[in-house]
Amino acid sequence: MNEDVIETLKRIFYPRSVAVIGASSDPNKIGGMILNNLIKDGYKGTIYPINIRCGRDFSEISGVKCYSSVKEVQGEIDVAVLAIPAKYVPQALVECGEKGVKGAIIISSGFAETGEEGAKLQKEILQIAKKFGIRIIGPNCMGIVNAHANLNLWFGLRIFRRGNIALISQSGAIADGFYSWAIDENLAFSIVVSLGNRADIDEGDLLTFLKEDPYTNVIGLYIEGLPAGMGKKFLRALREVTTVKPVVVLKAGRSSSGARVSLSHTGSLAGMYEVYKAAINQYGGIVVESSEEFMDVLKALSLIKRKKGKRLAIISNSGGLAILASDEAEKIGLSVPEFPIEVQKKILGIIPPFGNPKNPVDITAQGGPEDQKNMYCKVFDIINDETLVDAVLVIVEGSYPYDLMNAIKDAICHCIAPKKKLPTVVAWVGSKRLVGDLINEVEERGLPVYPSPERAVRVLKHVLTGVKE
Amino acid sequence: MNEDVIETLKRIFYPRSVAVIGASSDPNKIGGMILNNLIKDGYKGTIYPINIRCGRDFSEISGVKCYSSVKEVQGEIDVAVLAIPAKYVPQALVECGEKGVKGAIIISSGFAETGEEGAKLQKEILQIAKKFGIRIIGPNCMGIVNAHANLNLWFGLRIFRRGNIALISQSGAIADGFYSWAIDENLAFSIVVSLGNRADIDEGDLLTFLKEDPYTNVIGLYIEGLPAGMGKKFLRALREVTTVKPVVVLKAGRSSSGARVSLSHTGSLAGMYEVYKAAINQYGGIVVESSEEFMDVLKALSLIKRKKGKRLAIISNSGGLAILASDEAEKIGLSVPEFPIEVQKKILGIIPPFGNPKNPVDITAQGGPEDQKNMYCKVFDIINDETLVDAVLVIVEGSYPYDLMNAIKDAICHCIAPKKKLPTVVAWVGSKRLVGDLINEVEERGLPVYPSPERAVRVLKHVLTGVKE
Repeated sequence: MNEDVIETLKRIFYPRSVAVIGASSDPNKIGGMILNNLIKDGYKGTIYPINIRCGRDFSEISGVKCYSSVKEVQGEIDVAVLAIPAKYVPQALVECGEKGVKGAIIISSGFAETGEEGAKLQKEILQIAKKFGIRIIGPNCMGIVNAHANLNLWFGLRIFRRGNIALISQSGAIADGFYSWAIDENLAFSIVVSLGNRADIDEGDLLTFLKEDPYTNVIGLYIEGLPAGMGKKFLRALREVTTVKPVVVLKAGRSSSGARVSLSHTGSLAGMYEVYKAAINQYGGIVVESSEEFMDVLKALSLIKRKKGKRLAIISNSGGLAILASDEAEKIGLSVPEFPIEVQKKILGIIPPFGNPKNPVDITAQGGPEDQKNMYCKVFDIINDETLVDAVLVIVEGSYPYDLMNAIKDAICHCIAPKKKLPTVVAWVGSKRLVGDLINEVEERGLPVYPSPERAVRVLKHVLTGVKE
Repeated sequence: MNEDVIETLKRIFYPRSVAVIGASSDPNKIGGMILNNLIKDGYKGTIYPINIRCGRDFSEISGVKCYSSVKEVQGEIDVAVLAIPAKYVPQALVECGEKGVKGAIIISSGFAETGEEGAKLQKEILQIAKKFGIRIIGPNCMGIVNAHANLNLWFGLRIFRRGNIALISQSGAIADGFYSWAIDENLAFSIVVSLGNRADIDEGDLLTFLKEDPYTNVIGLYIEGLPAGMGKKFLRALREVTTVKPVVVLKAGRSSSGARVSLSHTGSLAGMYEVYKAAINQYGGIVVESSEEFMDVLKALSLIKRKKGKRLAIISNSGGLAILASDEAEKIGLSVPEFPIEVQKKILGIIPPFGNPKNPVDITAQGGPEDQKNMYCKVFDIINDETLVDAVLVIVEGSYPYDLMNAIKDAICHCIAPKKKLPTVVAWVGSKRLVGDLINEVEERGLPVYPSPERAVRVLKHVLTGVKE
């Protein structure tokens, strides 16, 4: 069973050929946007635009030979994307079945989300799918992206970066929002999936598939609620995948007002949320409490491995920011242990006398670019020691002068990054408009950067295992 | 007494003339950077660069006639900035006193922060200041900025924007970090002050002055600890200013590890923090829990007035984001009341049948630019009603297509902004690189924008009074 779904999802996410049913040359139409994204993002397989008017009114769409039905296509079709009005979906799906298509992504809305009539239609397409052995993503979804296959079947953004984060979302708008927000936050995705009405393929299937996906190292999951009976399958898949890849879960719908939007919820929601959270944790998932934390933790785990422990070393050129970080750390259950005297003595040999060697280490803003670089490098050499701590937070204050900031960036990229033995994250409090290029360089070296000390610390709560609030 | 300090601080922040003691033509030196900032940011008063070598080795610095001592200056000097080694500060201060200078900003470090010797030197300069009636900001500070006077006595960033937020920070690096971070977060300052060792002028003095400052509408305060005996004065000033202007306080140093950096702390810190927090709240201040919340609340209060209440209306083009917002709202003590049936009926006449009219209102992503614009406008007209709620959260999902996003921006700028009667904030989940210009337009119309629904909701906790967790 697992093998089946893995094979089908492989064919869907790494297809040799794609049919776009409802293809259009108008990029404002959904079928036009998807065809356009597929071509422009450099998909290497064969594209079959399908449009009922093809052969009659025109013979190609956006420069690609088109067909009036999948049944006219000579070659095999691995996956079909359906972007046509709901009422035409059953017939198109029958044709897909007759053609031997095994995967269908149904973008079309007008199904269960609209009420009784739509629910009936959804049942009908499920029966067709079952008859022909077609697996469905959707309906009422925003599509899928597999950046490493240059596969953009999303009616929205172009592929902007290739990475190792897979994002699965019940809500298409959430996936779309997070996917574009990620541009600013420097997250890089392998796969993005909008599940929509989740009539067939669900989170459990995708977790099972993503466990094997070679380009995916961390998985982010947005869920509102699991339909009754689906919990077991989901938790089993969660346990299996989390033995090799971390799964970060943002679970929405804990409030009574939120439940008014999310129809699937009933009963005591806050209580339900605690039950969900406990179950997800128990089965190896990481539950975060806000969308920002979701993005922050995904970025961290796309770059660094989790580690047991809870002790944190902090190095900072600003005492104030070091205090804010320490406050947050203790508040959420991390410890910032005072270093042994002999370690403090070594650090005192590097930093100015009015600095602080105890942990957090305040190297102060004293000196020029070379001095600052040296202090960051040499102090890091001392505290990068797992007998002392389990993780390191590097805090940088400033955006100006550029030379000074550049020297600190060099310390992080050329001393800290190559030597780090522990999970190491950076809080850089300044302006991305002024030092964004330096921050990007740091992230390219594998250290996640956050704009505030508290956000960096909260991420470490999930990177380190063994933290209890 | 209050009158005195107000008059002196007016002279410091709106000076007719400034002497830069330790001026240099080298922009990498502190005295060079400050002189450069003062000239380039268009200060309209008279600038007197002071350098001991002036008259002997050169007669002007950066094109401005210079002097070897303040005593050689003919005209009056309202404020002197000292950027010279600590050991020369006493003599320079005596000369300032003899010249009749009433305000000195001492950037120089090497005082109480360095130990006993420095503390002695600090005492000495305080005695000189007292003898001549000079008021001091610093020593060991990063300077001051008054954007509305084109006064940049900061050894760092140029003035990038003019606004109504005053930022007072005990820590210079914190002020510098927040000041530059503000570029990305669209915060606009009137005045920025780094208090440094706070040997003379303190938070209480500045609050008293800022209460009267015509360009300041909201005040942000970063404090680590108040010296014994200063509490009363501070709280009295806090109570007075908060009757007319909100004061947002970020209080650091609640943890034992944080206290290792902040020397002034002793005793049970977490407990102390609760006492501080309660006192600040009682005297009218707003205590925030992180640097990001500090920035977020300052931006909100720079644009909108506080209001009594706790009921929130939410309108969103994404159901998922509406749920996340509702979850956060209930978690922190806001309510998202279900609308009366007749209100729901009116909304149902505007949104698609599979949308949600109950509150949160899910208008869905249905339709083109004009449809989306109409839905935001018309639904807002209905929920912008203080008999229903006390504040409104407008959620926008997306970065693409631009036309669609631009239409939603138009709805906010041209329907919502001019009609709003309640505190109204926006959460726009997308990419600033793609729609940053649209977000800027929204903020120019007076609605603060945040990148996640939870951040927008947490801000409303402080904008609305009457919220209890």
